[in-house]
Amino acid sequence: MEEILVYGHRNPDSDAICTSIAYANLRNILKNNERAVAVRIGELNEETKYALEYFGVDNIPYVDNVAGKKIIMIDHNERTQTANGFEEAKVLELIDHHRIANFVTAEPLKARVEPYGCTSTIVCEMYMEKNIVPSKKMAGMMLSAIISDTLLFKSPTCTQNDIKACEYLASIAEVDLNKYGMDMLKAGTNLSKKTLKEILNMDMKIFELAKGRFGIAQINTVNEKEPLEKKEEYLKEISAMIEELKLDGFMFVITNILTNNSVAIVSGEKVDVIEKAFSKSNDSIIELPGVVSRKKQIVPPLTNA
Amino acid sequence: MEEILVYGHRNPDSDAICTSIAYANLRNILKNNERAVAVRIGELNEETKYALEYFGVDNIPYVDNVAGKKIIMIDHNERTQTANGFEEAKVLELIDHHRIANFVTAEPLKARVEPYGCTSTIVCEMYMEKNIVPSKKMAGMMLSAIISDTLLFKSPTCTQNDIKACEYLASIAEVDLNKYGMDMLKAGTNLSKKTLKEILNMDMKIFELAKGRFGIAQINTVNEKEPLEKKEEYLKEISAMIEELKLDGFMFVITNILTNNSVAIVSGEKVDVIEKAFSKSNDSIIELPGVVSRKKQIVPPLTNA
Ligand SMILES: [Mn+2]
Ligand SMILES: [Mn+2]
Repeated sequence: MEEILVYGHRNPDSDAICTSIAYANLRNILKNNERAVAVRIGELNEETKYALEYFGVDNIPYVDNVAGKKIIMIDHNERTQTANGFEEAKVLELIDHHRIANFVTAEPLKARVEPYGCTSTIVCEMYMEKNIVPSKKMAGMMLSAIISDTLLFKSPTCTQNDIKACEYLASIAEVDLNKYGMDMLKAGTNLSKKTLKEILNMDMKIFELAKGRFGIAQINTVNEKEPLEKKEEYLKEISAMIEELKLDGFMFVITNILTNNSVAIVSGEKVDVIEKAFSKSNDSIIELPGVVSRKKQIVPPLTNA
Repeated sequence: MEEILVYGHRNPDSDAICTSIAYANLRNILKNNERAVAVRIGELNEETKYALEYFGVDNIPYVDNVAGKKIIMIDHNERTQTANGFEEAKVLELIDHHRIANFVTAEPLKARVEPYGCTSTIVCEMYMEKNIVPSKKMAGMMLSAIISDTLLFKSPTCTQNDIKACEYLASIAEVDLNKYGMDMLKAGTNLSKKTLKEILNMDMKIFELAKGRFGIAQINTVNEKEPLEKKEEYLKEISAMIEELKLDGFMFVITNILTNNSVAIVSGEKVDVIEKAFSKSNDSIIELPGVVSRKKQIVPPLTNA
């Protein structure tokens, strides 16, 4: 039976992982002659591990290269965020909630993109359209992704569709959204086992903008003082990443999930572009009050700067 | 009330025009606070005129530039095929059945792309999903687009979804698909009022491929001898277009809708790439037996050549 790889972006977050699992499940219910397999192109973060363990869902296989494979891309479309070997893969489908850029296919495909807060909201609507009630496990996967991407509905990216889907999924998964959501988000703030380099790479995306190539990493925390105390060590790691990845600028965004404010450690040759987008840095630090969404509150000002 | 422009590609065909009309209609039924307006960025061809007249649908306004507008793109996504001012427009939605390439948005959007034979099949499915029965006029628009793009189901791009949608629409529009379809396709072969330059531009698309920039024009006919008799005059016009549009190669594909074969007049500096994709030209002519679809039978071999 033909195998189709379903995967999310590099440095996968809960949306990239959990939505891949839920969509592979739906597609296998709907199609008999193919087998969709959810895979990942990076390591699980602590938050996603918590979600998988809570709902008793197995980890998914790691894949290094998708050349020669049929693929379904979840939660990303830009070339810099996808798998090695993409050019030699056949893109069957794209399900995403980001802008479209640096994305080229050789042939017509199926694409479903919505300006929602989370890709799982799209997949949940696909279950509903097909009159398929997701299992408790799959509902758990999708609601975890929505909680993660919308920071429990606090992010400005969150839409009514996300809230509606998440509440429907919670009724199936039999969880208290607020309790489970805070527990899951807090699990994601546990960075004790990670090196600084690993922390910077947990949720780092590269954006090719008119003004240059910027890396933007984001972590959630309940106490931003801890990472800020290690600022000098982070700056050293960031310099190495800038060199290795040929970046013009870097923002390490630390988001407090209790206060919904962020603070960023910034560096790079074009730090002036970052300052123009936000505010002057003070000792490599920029305060970002009320900012929680990279997609809606960081990338657009940086694009326009 | 906010106005949203709904439009198909340059040198619009029946899919570009009729699907824009049908989708603007659906969106206006569904949304109260906005007004979707179907517009065109080029002249109607004879086939589309026949469809509009047959179903008593008014022609739609011509728009020169979409800068500053909210837009919904139908039946195309590549930059070379869209309206002037695209960079300064806000893309709300994309509905298409082509590969994705040279398409960049600043923000997340709604995109619905399916590998179907025609964009109207997607819009027809959207009507069905919303439990809205299209009016006789709108059913007529959508079935005309499907007949046009699939050459009455003869094109290899035609899918079961196209046939199903078209038969459903024919039952609403109360037409005999074969009779209406052949009459409409034949109306499109009437080129008596057009100059050679107009004929070449009726359905011409530019493709930026690895090997260069190629123009591919296509017309339908019931007798390919007529255009072939004017080969030398066409070649003169083609040379002028190659110069003006900075093309590396040009194919003028003449498709017989009765025999479902094509023949192409070819020209340009990189005619060798075209020959490699198909066969050696004979006096600037390449026979293309069984070829009716630019998207499926011409662009892919040219891309791989
Ligand atoms: Mn996401
Ligand atoms: Mn079309």
